Amino acid sequence: MAIDPAARSVAVLGPQGASSDLTYDRLIIATGARPVLPDIPGINLPGVCPLHTMGDALAVNDLLERASSSCSAVIVGAGYIGLEMAEALVGRGIDVTVLSRSGRLFPTVDTEFGTAIKNELARHGVHVVRSGNLEEITAAGDGRRLVAHSSEAEGVTADLILVAVGVQPDSRLAASAGVTLGTNGAINVDRAMRTSVPEILAAGDCAETWHRLLQRNLYLPLGTTSHKQGRVAGETAVGRAGRFEGCVGTQVVKLFDLVVARTGLLDCEAREAGFAPTTVETEAWDHKAYYPDASKLRLRVTGDRATGRLLGAQILGTWGKAEVSKRIDVFATALFHEMRVDAMSDLDLSYAPPFSSPWEPVQMASQAWSARL
Amino acid sequence: MAIDPAARSVAVLGPQGASSDLTYDRLIIATGARPVLPDIPGINLPGVCPLHTMGDALAVNDLLERASSSCSAVIVGAGYIGLEMAEALVGRGIDVTVLSRSGRLFPTVDTEFGTAIKNELARHGVHVVRSGNLEEITAAGDGRRLVAHSSEAEGVTADLILVAVGVQPDSRLAASAGVTLGTNGAINVDRAMRTSVPEILAAGDCAETWHRLLQRNLYLPLGTTSHKQGRVAGETAVGRAGRFEGCVGTQVVKLFDLVVARTGLLDCEAREAGFAPTTVETEAWDHKAYYPDASKLRLRVTGDRATGRLLGAQILGTWGKAEVSKRIDVFATALFHEMRVDAMSDLDLSYAPPFSSPWEPVQMASQAWSARL
Repeated sequence: MAIDPAARSVAVLGPQGASSDLTYDRLIIATGARPVLPDIPGINLPGVCPLHTMGDALAVNDLLERASSSCSAVIVGAGYIGLEMAEALVGRGIDVTVLSRSGRLFPTVDTEFGTAIKNELARHGVHVVRSGNLEEITAAGDGRRLVAHSSEAEGVTADLILVAVGVQPDSRLAASAGVTLGTNGAINVDRAMRTSVPEILAAGDCAETWHRLLQRNLYLPLGTTSHKQGRVAGETAVGRAGRFEGCVGTQVVKLFDLVVARTGLLDCEAREAGFAPTTVETEAWDHKAYYPDASKLRLRVTGDRATGRLLGAQILGTWGKAEVSKRIDVFATALFHEMRVDAMSDLDLSYAPPFSSPWEPVQMASQAWSARL
Repeated sequence: MAIDPAARSVAVLGPQGASSDLTYDRLIIATGARPVLPDIPGINLPGVCPLHTMGDALAVNDLLERASSSCSAVIVGAGYIGLEMAEALVGRGIDVTVLSRSGRLFPTVDTEFGTAIKNELARHGVHVVRSGNLEEITAAGDGRRLVAHSSEAEGVTADLILVAVGVQPDSRLAASAGVTLGTNGAINVDRAMRTSVPEILAAGDCAETWHRLLQRNLYLPLGTTSHKQGRVAGETAVGRAGRFEGCVGTQVVKLFDLVVARTGLLDCEAREAGFAPTTVETEAWDHKAYYPDASKLRLRVTGDRATGRLLGAQILGTWGKAEVSKRIDVFATALFHEMRVDAMSDLDLSYAPPFSSPWEPVQMASQAWSARL
């Protein structure tokens, strides 16, 4: 495929190899992201799988079905995809080792939560190894399995090696059309999702994301953002005044019986952005402890000491019980409106004993932050 | 107890009957609410119980423990307390009949949801009777049980009659001190929780509540509001500039396997307040249907046709699955900030397949409202 911006046309290769030109008034590039694959010996060996396309998933499934009963897997990467895959593979009875370059799990939340995640993985038999860089993949002596060699750990032998060390924007088509790239090589866009080339728009994992708190573009490929950007790009394309209001960094993941969620900025991110952050952790029951089945939540609130402004929150709780993901959404909505931490107590949130307390845990955590200051 | 505002003192009756005077700089009245008990023959018969104090609860428990194995109860009232008691009594194997004056259950949500609630009660064997007014309670022929007679139904015989037809502010002490009463006889207060009498403040179920959407005081006794008002009253009492930011009418209840929540104004309430409301109902999976254990949510969004402003929302879903109470909190936070319905799609809410969709159901419901218009 190739774009000719001057002619406003796209050359498309048809199924029979014949090329045809499509002309456009507006063009939206939504080429997404592709997995980062380290350029190391053995990365293309059979049994080494990226996780990107449906085909990748089917290939993994195929390998697992053909594998022996005592199948083992190495997962390279300890982010969302890596850890979600660890849970999925354990569910199929597979012995899983996660190689984490820094030894940190799920660096999108504070190390305090990372430790809880590590314990949860250990409880389900997942081995976590601080590995440094992956350096080479070789065939094992049995000619069937593979060995992952890394800079700071012993080689690990497994039937399957999944590589989930992040994604990069697939902006090659855009670049070839002369579109300006920005952060991390993502397509530079404005709030209406316009690129540097007139009539060409971009949206989704191939493009930059406006961050509402940082007030600048960064590269943060997420499905929720892609949906919003796609809508705005569509509006702009048909001449309506759409505007992407920005992300605040909201994310959630289920890992076995844990749910971990975050929104806004971590303490370190806030400091780097010029705020004066303080983070306070609070423990609270998800609902009234006298009502059956209450479980403990951990909430970390980050606020700005100088202004009292809410900067971020992280919550860790039990899956199926603590409504962690919607609680982070309350913080996300508060961040959207630039609320102060102490104003969280003004929100009229729902209460009945099976669900919460008269002060919602998100409010208790905010009050604990204010009290600490 | 008696207040002398001129002397800034309260006469308190001690445990031995001796009266003592306590002087004050600021006085906070927090006398709460008391149950409405219809003034009808038989209301004081043993076995007729209000539900207010811990003593009332113990008395009910006592009666149930002494009752025969095939115990039955009549509950007068189909609001929160009545329906929560129905669930609790069914849990103890008791045959329950709910007398609803109008036949409507839980009128704090739309009749569309009332029907679902009625079905859920029926599924658990609760009889609901449209009764008109309760007119008399008599002893049954067996000399042990009671009969509830009402204007539009046959008499219902039961071991126990629970009366849960609402509460009224307990503002008697305040009135005797010359404090001005307002809506429903509740103590009239300003946003700092000051009453009409200098140095006297009031908070909680004895006082009026500022409604943030209606921009006026009404009587809406809720625990969440009481906590907020108490805090503000305390701040005012010590000379700090506290202000009650108002309630938006958020409520949630669990009824057997259902959760029902609301925030903001119902369509009828909005119309009465001078808005031009439209309400649109949407059905959505609580999370991605391909991920196990998804359940359907019903969401009703009310917005103003003239301005596009969000006015209210109601959600009905399955207990323990659908995170209904926190989803209503997202709407409640949006209402706090006077958001437009279409701006709900701008919120950066959390998504992973076990929890939601890239467009959160609260956003899908808002989009459905916008599409209808």
